[in-house]
Amino acid sequence: MGRASDRRQVTRIDLGGPGPVRRQDTLAAEEPLEIRVGHRRGPRPPLAVTMRTPGDELDLALGFLLTEGVVTGPGDVLTAQLCDGADTANSYNVVDVVLADHVPPPAAGTERNFYTTSSCGVCGKASIDAIRTRSPHDVAADPVTVDAHVLSALPDRLRAAQRTFERTGGLHAAGLFTAAGELVAIREDVGRHNAVDKVIGAQLQAGRLPLAGHVLLVSGRASFELTQKAWMAGISVLAAVSAPSTLAVDLAAEAGMTLVGFLRGQTMNVYAGPQRITA
Amino acid sequence: MGRASDRRQVTRIDLGGPGPVRRQDTLAAEEPLEIRVGHRRGPRPPLAVTMRTPGDELDLALGFLLTEGVVTGPGDVLTAQLCDGADTANSYNVVDVVLADHVPPPAAGTERNFYTTSSCGVCGKASIDAIRTRSPHDVAADPVTVDAHVLSALPDRLRAAQRTFERTGGLHAAGLFTAAGELVAIREDVGRHNAVDKVIGAQLQAGRLPLAGHVLLVSGRASFELTQKAWMAGISVLAAVSAPSTLAVDLAAEAGMTLVGFLRGQTMNVYAGPQRITA
Repeated sequence: MGRASDRRQVTRIDLGGPGPVRRQDTLAAEEPLEIRVGHRRGPRPPLAVTMRTPGDELDLALGFLLTEGVVTGPGDVLTAQLCDGADTANSYNVVDVVLADHVPPPAAGTERNFYTTSSCGVCGKASIDAIRTRSPHDVAADPVTVDAHVLSALPDRLRAAQRTFERTGGLHAAGLFTAAGELVAIREDVGRHNAVDKVIGAQLQAGRLPLAGHVLLVSGRASFELTQKAWMAGISVLAAVSAPSTLAVDLAAEAGMTLVGFLRGQTMNVYAGPQRITA
Repeated sequence: MGRASDRRQVTRIDLGGPGPVRRQDTLAAEEPLEIRVGHRRGPRPPLAVTMRTPGDELDLALGFLLTEGVVTGPGDVLTAQLCDGADTANSYNVVDVVLADHVPPPAAGTERNFYTTSSCGVCGKASIDAIRTRSPHDVAADPVTVDAHVLSALPDRLRAAQRTFERTGGLHAAGLFTAAGELVAIREDVGRHNAVDKVIGAQLQAGRLPLAGHVLLVSGRASFELTQKAWMAGISVLAAVSAPSTLAVDLAAEAGMTLVGFLRGQTMNVYAGPQRITA
């Protein structure tokens, strides 16, 4: 089975100390995951390969399919399992997803074409329009409010729950919280988008979508992609420890989401939907 | 034209201070870039869409094509230009690359299939083998050495040269240095892989590849993808301010590269190729 971390030899150099020292260091593990998608009958070709930290493979695959608009709920998936083909040593690096018969197969190049439409050019506005067309959730209608004091306590709670980061210093995290600040789920990964997909995929499998009334916290920056994933899962409050991009803010505003950045200590910046944050 | 940063309204909350304040905040800009590739005659379909910070579009497109193995040198590219189609408002979001006649067209799904080969399964080893097959450069043969004191001064030099980060707090950076610590090129982007592609693409256009004798420094973590890009450009020393992943270390060791992580203050960890670092 895959491991979230692994050890490697390292030469530690300290210019203010003694000479170089050889020692063992614990690193965040990175491995490719291939996601194969199709129907019961017929081929299930690879849709995507993502570099990720081993663990929670089914959550990652299903979260990816949901946030990319291929599936919209657990009823769209017949089975999802780790492959056990001829090459059993690597079977945990391939997930095989069987779609329900009523679900159209993903278009070739799903990933690449998600952000753009040929009708209106390639720009941030077109990217936002493409997401609006696909998201089945009206996050603007989510009446949830979050106390700013509750929000400011979440980064410490996320960090405390990050088991692998402590050992490696090298993993992103995504945490799903209730509006009262209770941790629902946390996932770690070398890729932020994977950590978010894992969190969302686990909730999808548990039948908890859409995720109105929740806060999604990410350990790094808020990009367009992460905002898109939150919207696709019906999450109305996205918070990031670091800076958002312009397009993340514009997408959040368009969706009627609340986007919080630079959530650190007693301060935060609310870039969209400030009416949900009570001080 | 695209801008590297832009301003948005923000509500600033300080729980230890007065009530919420509305103000302007400067954010890192994010926009899609579509890269179209083909030959003089015939169609030039979109190969990839990447979310990136506007600026240095041709460098980004050419760096991407080089590090993905589509081109190997400036002689493989006839022209590369920003599109000026019907939709002129967004013309800076499309780059049109015309390959020389002798260059095979990129396989469909270049990005997705890069990391895996059908013959040997999906695993880290197969991903490394795929890069070894593609990289034209024997970075193991690069005799360059770098003084650890020189290396430890590079992060401050990179940060000092980051113009947009100061204003936004939200951009990754990649810097190319000589072995003596002289800054050759720096690029900033919301995506680390884009910052690296921009640096490499600029050197490609200047006819300076392969980049033996240089150090590539990235502001964040070292992933498999960034290590792959360095190898494809012939860079033998990759340094990161933060942690590497297991697969980044394994790829660097396989290539005969030097990989330095946690380059901070007077300390650093050398994960591969320590013989190039003199203390």
